[in-house]
Amino acid sequence: MAISGVMRAGTVQIRVTDMAAAADHYENVLGLVRSGAGADGRLYLKGWDEHDHHSVILRRADAPGMDCMGFKVSDREALSSFERRLRDLGLKTERVPAGADLGAGERVRFVVPTGHTMELYAEMEQVGNGLALENPEVSPDGLRGIHPTHFDHCLLYGDDVDGAVRVFTEALGFKLAERVVSLDGKVLIGAFLACSTKPHDVAFIRSEGKGKFHHAAFYVESWHDLKTAADLLTKRRVKLDIGPTRHGITRGGTIYFFDPAGNRNETFSGGYLYYPDRPTLSWTENELGRGIFYYDRRLNENFLGVTT
Amino acid sequence: MAISGVMRAGTVQIRVTDMAAAADHYENVLGLVRSGAGADGRLYLKGWDEHDHHSVILRRADAPGMDCMGFKVSDREALSSFERRLRDLGLKTERVPAGADLGAGERVRFVVPTGHTMELYAEMEQVGNGLALENPEVSPDGLRGIHPTHFDHCLLYGDDVDGAVRVFTEALGFKLAERVVSLDGKVLIGAFLACSTKPHDVAFIRSEGKGKFHHAAFYVESWHDLKTAADLLTKRRVKLDIGPTRHGITRGGTIYFFDPAGNRNETFSGGYLYYPDRPTLSWTENELGRGIFYYDRRLNENFLGVTT
Amino acid sequence: MAISGVMRAGTVQIRVTDMAAAADHYENVLGLVRSGAGADGRLYLKGWDEHDHHSVILRRADAPGMDCMGFKVSDREALSSFERRLRDLGLKTERVPAGADLGAGERVRFVVPTGHTMELYAEMEQVGNGLALENPEVSPDGLRGIHPTHFDHCLLYGDDVDGAVRVFTEALGFKLAERVVSLDGKVLIGAFLACSTKPHDVAFIRSEGKGKFHHAAFYVESWHDLKTAADLLTKRRVKLDIGPTRHGITRGGTIYFFDPAGNRNETFSGGYLYYPDRPTLSWTENELGRGIFYYDRRLNENFLGVTT
Amino acid sequence: MAISGVMRAGTVQIRVTDMAAAADHYENVLGLVRSGAGADGRLYLKGWDEHDHHSVILRRADAPGMDCMGFKVSDREALSSFERRLRDLGLKTERVPAGADLGAGERVRFVVPTGHTMELYAEMEQVGNGLALENPEVSPDGLRGIHPTHFDHCLLYGDDVDGAVRVFTEALGFKLAERVVSLDGKVLIGAFLACSTKPHDVAFIRSEGKGKFHHAAFYVESWHDLKTAADLLTKRRVKLDIGPTRHGITRGGTIYFFDPAGNRNETFSGGYLYYPDRPTLSWTENELGRGIFYYDRRLNENFLGVTT
Repeated sequence: MAISGVMRAGTVQIRVTDMAAAADHYENVLGLVRSGAGADGRLYLKGWDEHDHHSVILRRADAPGMDCMGFKVSDREALSSFERRLRDLGLKTERVPAGADLGAGERVRFVVPTGHTMELYAEMEQVGNGLALENPEVSPDGLRGIHPTHFDHCLLYGDDVDGAVRVFTEALGFKLAERVVSLDGKVLIGAFLACSTKPHDVAFIRSEGKGKFHHAAFYVESWHDLKTAADLLTKRRVKLDIGPTRHGITRGGTIYFFDPAGNRNETFSGGYLYYPDRPTLSWTENELGRGIFYYDRRLNENFLGVTT
Repeated sequence: MAISGVMRAGTVQIRVTDMAAAADHYENVLGLVRSGAGADGRLYLKGWDEHDHHSVILRRADAPGMDCMGFKVSDREALSSFERRLRDLGLKTERVPAGADLGAGERVRFVVPTGHTMELYAEMEQVGNGLALENPEVSPDGLRGIHPTHFDHCLLYGDDVDGAVRVFTEALGFKLAERVVSLDGKVLIGAFLACSTKPHDVAFIRSEGKGKFHHAAFYVESWHDLKTAADLLTKRRVKLDIGPTRHGITRGGTIYFFDPAGNRNETFSGGYLYYPDRPTLSWTENELGRGIFYYDRRLNENFLGVTT
Repeated sequence: MAISGVMRAGTVQIRVTDMAAAADHYENVLGLVRSGAGADGRLYLKGWDEHDHHSVILRRADAPGMDCMGFKVSDREALSSFERRLRDLGLKTERVPAGADLGAGERVRFVVPTGHTMELYAEMEQVGNGLALENPEVSPDGLRGIHPTHFDHCLLYGDDVDGAVRVFTEALGFKLAERVVSLDGKVLIGAFLACSTKPHDVAFIRSEGKGKFHHAAFYVESWHDLKTAADLLTKRRVKLDIGPTRHGITRGGTIYFFDPAGNRNETFSGGYLYYPDRPTLSWTENELGRGIFYYDRRLNENFLGVTT
Repeated sequence: MAISGVMRAGTVQIRVTDMAAAADHYENVLGLVRSGAGADGRLYLKGWDEHDHHSVILRRADAPGMDCMGFKVSDREALSSFERRLRDLGLKTERVPAGADLGAGERVRFVVPTGHTMELYAEMEQVGNGLALENPEVSPDGLRGIHPTHFDHCLLYGDDVDGAVRVFTEALGFKLAERVVSLDGKVLIGAFLACSTKPHDVAFIRSEGKGKFHHAAFYVESWHDLKTAADLLTKRRVKLDIGPTRHGITRGGTIYFFDPAGNRNETFSGGYLYYPDRPTLSWTENELGRGIFYYDRRLNENFLGVTT
């Protein structure tokens, strides 16, 4: 199989402080599709073009943030193989039984050196993308809000970026598509990690502390869709961080905004097609403004300062 | 490594009957970037965002068509492994030494049951995409014509589609993203094969005879780019087949047109993100019109009848 | 006032053979907004960004076609002035009292030499565009289907194009933005007439007979909107004529399709900004294919043969 | 004639401090087409789709700013009529003889109460838009940079906005498409004035002092063109103010940036179709942020503070 091992960033569990407000935001503004609600009150959502049961889980909590991020691997054998390699790197791993999340198969859970909880899984119930498997249309009826096609990636803040990169590249086979380094080249400030052909499935920015959540990104199909997304965000008075604009890193179009709990969402579009024989691109910290916001060419305070 | 084995459709060698006319078409209208010219008169070209030396080779000949199509694999070990698996399936393979094409490493050549010559290679000189590797811009200066980012896929016509599919899936690890079947479900009329996350890297349509070339496709970034491409095609009086329009199969936007020798080119954009756990989509022959041309919902004579 | 006299193509009354099917098409597929239903069974509709009560009236009849087309003039004085000028040209005019159509003021009705009934009116009840007049948003909620902003123009077929052009230019102050002529330059085959800055508010193509209706066009904001319109047309299995494609004449993007009664609709986008000091563009009949369909560069049978 | 009186904002003369730098900016980055250079060193430019000789004149001076803005009227009779109406309002008018600017006919010059010099003219040499008048293509070859189709409007800052509005509406027949008022409704803070179907040809914002120049705007055809414009602005390191983003007022898409002398340019796209029977929209100062920048919903310091 051409794509094997880790296929993609598949899930993210986000803490929200008001479930009704969050449900309205994620279903009616962002426009994810609800695929289930747990007996424990958690809400399960997905991008419309995802076949798996869910990609986003909302959990009510007293403070916002990310509980964990999950990556789907090609098969159960790969799951076991990655578990061994994680342990070989000295990480503790834990098996979460199938069914602990709705529709979810068995998972391998571990914590990377930036303090973020990660999971691998090979199996999830497939609920389809709302289109027939025979002679389908190009999009389903009844979509609401921005309706991204899929959960795309997360950007996470934490102290030991080198450690997190080592886990993803050495144990899990990710490639470093782009990186941000200090002017003297000695400090890895940011790392954009790809497991298949997206320019990133997960990224890390060096920051004090552990386990900070910068954003979860959702894919829309075009620059035009970013405009209609921005129209809706204003009409619904969703708090904007920045955008529509474009990243230098990944070249993707973007809008950053906040859910009612203060978690940052991104609608992302475009970005180049990554292959593992593509050279790693480097950004120096003095050009990071253009790297993050290609048009403004400077970081805003929100981007740097606000995480959950 | 997450993407291993066959990474992508990497090269296509196309026969043209008038090299000067072809060079003008491929460089100034399609807008590929020239990366070399062989002592044997062959012209080497690439999409601007490709790092490898070339993806298209033009060879002067008395009749148009495709000489061969090449796929880049992750490393030399994979090359040897695929060679064995091809032989295990009963195919003859041949090693083409490094340097036989400009910038090209050693290749494994074989012929699939539809009569098309295919190659695998692990190495090619990298010439870059015209952008710096440190603090790059989002696009290079001086692009001409339609300037697709990369060579995307080929569609080939031939009799033994089942045989070709078996080679690609069993020996090379491709997945069947979509297929077209007869109404009774017994005859495989078309097969769209993916090796990574594009909905196809190569496709086959059942047809009398061997080795027919339907089109080579080049990727542009948006539906808007298809409009500016179509503007240029008319201004330059390039022979149009159809478009801009949209495929049901792959969902991609498309224009089909012809080079001066009569080979069909496609500019392709969009298409969903394919993963190997995505179910194979099926089209029945009575809905093939909508599958190929989602808006017209019927095939035109050119699409069916003209190959080289 | 800078724009005075005839301001725009304002209304069109279309005959439909099945009102329920037509209502579904015009409201849910084309996405006009219903603004009223007459006691006589006629249905009143408008594009969402129109402030006047209606721009489209559907009337049930045994055969499809256009009953009449209306143009809004700047004030009652202009209405009387045009009435005199029409009579001076030898046309019969008739006053239709206010209220004969829902929300409509008094109208001046006349028949142009191609056999089409035309109306002028200075007043219509304003119902607004769904947005506040103070601190508005950029678009209203609840739009359905393609939801064009406004009724844009009609193309009409008839024998005496020269006569119709004389009425519109000499009596009503329209300008000839573009025209199609025979190769010898002696026969006016087509005329595209502008009253303000759109490249046409009404157009005529020479054809046998009187009073034929080729299409009514509705404006969408971008080339991207034409793609989503085409997606919906296929999903709803609306009969397509051609598109998305582009006109050489006016440069506008277009899709042509049919309502359930067989009347042709157009979704139109773009087109240059016309001013009366812009030279009239001429097309010769041998280039008419490219003039009408810039990408295909040839007319299709539907375009020429199907009118209602 | 349907459009009579003032047809459009036709010209703007801008002061630049370094002509070579300005020429590079306006020709290669903004991508206006050079149509002449005066013996006095002034440079004449136009948008590619304008037929008149020029719309922009650059004059070298010690300080940036706008010398004057010109409006084209339908004919010489209108010119004389407006001259009388301006005098009737108490303004001094001056005739500038034909030929004082390259290709320009006679002009009527006057100063509005905000201190801005304005001109009216009925005649200018037509040089064409680079396309044939018979059987044209949809765009000319050889365009560079952002290449807007035409000069669209200016926004001007000054103290007596009420006075300027009175001149434009009472003497010149403009309509107030949108206005910004203080919370108590007593102070007119901003006025967006239309002479034909664009939502503004000239706009004023109340500010201390006289004759300040906020920006000159140039029209591009789509939201997509704003992205490619922004790409180029960054690549050329042109100083950005804000964008791509969208206005609430006019609904147009926008990028604001600066020429090398510090004058603000806008690339503008979209905006609704204005007609004189459309109600004037009002914005209250507390919502002005959303009115100017619909996505950010707040003004930035540059927008308010920087004029030339």
